[in-house]
Amino acid sequence: MKETVLKKYAKLIIKMGVNLKKGQLLVVNAPVESYPLVDAVVEQGYLAGAKTVLVLWSDIRVTRQSYLNESEEILTSIPEYVKQRYDYITEQSYAVVNISSSNPSALNGIDPNKQTAVMKALQPIIAKYRDNAMKSVNQWTIAAYPNQEWANKVFPNLNNKQAYKALQDAILMTSRMSGNPLANWKEHNNNLLKRSQWLNDLGLQYLHITSSNGTDLKVYLADTHIWIGGQEKTPKGVLFNPNIPTEECFTMPHSLKTSGIVYSTKPLSYQGQLIEDFSLTFKEGVVVKYQARVNEASLKALLDSDEGSKRIGEIALVPYHSPISESKILFYQTLFDENASCHLALGRAYPTNVVNGEKLSQDGLSKLGANASINHVDFMIGASDTKIVGYKKDGSQVNIFINGDWA
Amino acid sequence: MKETVLKKYAKLIIKMGVNLKKGQLLVVNAPVESYPLVDAVVEQGYLAGAKTVLVLWSDIRVTRQSYLNESEEILTSIPEYVKQRYDYITEQSYAVVNISSSNPSALNGIDPNKQTAVMKALQPIIAKYRDNAMKSVNQWTIAAYPNQEWANKVFPNLNNKQAYKALQDAILMTSRMSGNPLANWKEHNNNLLKRSQWLNDLGLQYLHITSSNGTDLKVYLADTHIWIGGQEKTPKGVLFNPNIPTEECFTMPHSLKTSGIVYSTKPLSYQGQLIEDFSLTFKEGVVVKYQARVNEASLKALLDSDEGSKRIGEIALVPYHSPISESKILFYQTLFDENASCHLALGRAYPTNVVNGEKLSQDGLSKLGANASINHVDFMIGASDTKIVGYKKDGSQVNIFINGDWA
Repeated sequence: MKETVLKKYAKLIIKMGVNLKKGQLLVVNAPVESYPLVDAVVEQGYLAGAKTVLVLWSDIRVTRQSYLNESEEILTSIPEYVKQRYDYITEQSYAVVNISSSNPSALNGIDPNKQTAVMKALQPIIAKYRDNAMKSVNQWTIAAYPNQEWANKVFPNLNNKQAYKALQDAILMTSRMSGNPLANWKEHNNNLLKRSQWLNDLGLQYLHITSSNGTDLKVYLADTHIWIGGQEKTPKGVLFNPNIPTEECFTMPHSLKTSGIVYSTKPLSYQGQLIEDFSLTFKEGVVVKYQARVNEASLKALLDSDEGSKRIGEIALVPYHSPISESKILFYQTLFDENASCHLALGRAYPTNVVNGEKLSQDGLSKLGANASINHVDFMIGASDTKIVGYKKDGSQVNIFINGDWA
Repeated sequence: MKETVLKKYAKLIIKMGVNLKKGQLLVVNAPVESYPLVDAVVEQGYLAGAKTVLVLWSDIRVTRQSYLNESEEILTSIPEYVKQRYDYITEQSYAVVNISSSNPSALNGIDPNKQTAVMKALQPIIAKYRDNAMKSVNQWTIAAYPNQEWANKVFPNLNNKQAYKALQDAILMTSRMSGNPLANWKEHNNNLLKRSQWLNDLGLQYLHITSSNGTDLKVYLADTHIWIGGQEKTPKGVLFNPNIPTEECFTMPHSLKTSGIVYSTKPLSYQGQLIEDFSLTFKEGVVVKYQARVNEASLKALLDSDEGSKRIGEIALVPYHSPISESKILFYQTLFDENASCHLALGRAYPTNVVNGEKLSQDGLSKLGANASINHVDFMIGASDTKIVGYKKDGSQVNIFINGDWA
């Protein structure tokens, strides 16, 4: 990326993504390859008044080596300093920038049960940090940066240089980086807000989702559920954009009531491994049957992680003709693919998706239908002919989606 | 670097550099740009039986931003987890690979006093980790990896691609990577060992160093001093090579006895800033006068860090016609430039340079003449006509260097 583009992109991330406030700690989670963007983000962070900056670097190839060579016992022995580092972060006012730039199948072939074991070992350590994100206690965002392996996966017919450039262009286009990005995002956020308000005003009880691929699913919504699109707000009233790009309006399903069958419409990159062409059958909210054409073992590991991983915690509506979808690019990365398709998430619900949710205990949330889990994994279900009918409490119907798009 | 070269280089680093033993923790300190080498080193580390691997990434541009934007108070407030991380390392059997790949003037213009303050704040935190390295308690090594800014500094007349390639070739050449690197290093280590034994057998009391640039310095050696070249040995008898490349035979000067004047013969990159064309005048071991044509402020900050920074802790002999020197390349990086030139180090002495030094307390070491300091900064003094005469205790003389080379 050219320096001028990096600067503009970093400014979007700092101003619109996390909306960093003077005196905050800026945390950046980033793969090492993305250092040019990280450097720009750090510079913009200080310009916005960051008190200090903590970059937590990662390298998926090192992670792969550790999984290949270390026993589960060693992998799950997380050193004490890791917890202290999260405590250091959560004890102060902070904002988190996540740079997403990974090879979607970098961990193919790794034992998914090992991965789940590590995730579980990390759980108590990152609990507060993760809670804060799920409850929008602090600002956070995810934005992407190209890398060669990912580019080659997305554009297998182009040479290295062309593929990298094509992925970069796709990231910038879908992130609404042309012209004046901040103005683009203000307008975009307004549109998503209007859409969410329309959904909230409907007061829906459940959604009936069907498409010609066989999907036939009834998703009941949580009591007092709220549809959210675009910006979110911290308890202190700071607006931020958790996803760059974003096209979704999402809310909380009731964890005990989903029923029917749903077919995936895009591959799912879960913990660095691709799961393809799968279906899930729900009864009273829980997955009672599943199958996957590719990598069923990873799907099984995901569903078996804990009780909540077999239930859904999010339903998101994205028109089949969104800019990302129209690019016709399969990104193999949830940040993009979820914004090109209606999707559900297995696992934990966002407390912000019910009234006063961030103030409720897990018990209080559960009573409204909120799912609890160590996971929150989006998977794509939107097709070109997806039909969604909303049912209100009085039994009346309203068309929400027709032929994959807003009715 | 091509993958085959990376693998060969990583193997040299793991086998000859740290000589990693089964069950050890492998710590890798590395700038983010060097990730291709880090990935190869981690792979070789696991092949050699690493129990686990900890990569501590750094990014000098982020460091620069933090110095530019943060107050000294914030910069010196080191979070508790940093200490815990060093404790985690030093509590187990470990080996450290340092990848050196920085822009030699990346921190130009930063207040050197701020840098010293940070170094002092870090001191108690890294004390044990640093002690272990200085005493060869664990294996450690430094090896280099090219980066664009560094390459452009070293080869200002080449374009980006040519400069990078030229720096890469120079690193590989001086690291004796052609043919069979492990065999090359075995032979090289033997040669350095013979040279050191010859020096040890001489039983010198002091060295008189002169050259036509004005240098006229008497360096008394510490009691029971030992010359070391090439490999070092941990208390458990594990041989390792702390520097790739290395050309030096070095020992401990007596901290209270150096006298005369010495002129630098190469620029010194200290904390990311270049100090050029400087001289130091010593009396009874301490610097009583100094000047620098470029960046005297950094030199002053270095000397003022603590009492020991005004005294020397190492003297190293390197022939003016070493392979690195003959490459005629000025690397602007101590790992290379120190191995192209005789040098001294301001600051702490290596306990391994006196008999049983690693078992002595600081008091015991001081009695022999060992300097103590938070610093250990090599600077280059070798010239084409450097003459070094050794004086034995019986007053007899022996020529050590004539015209910059071994006599």
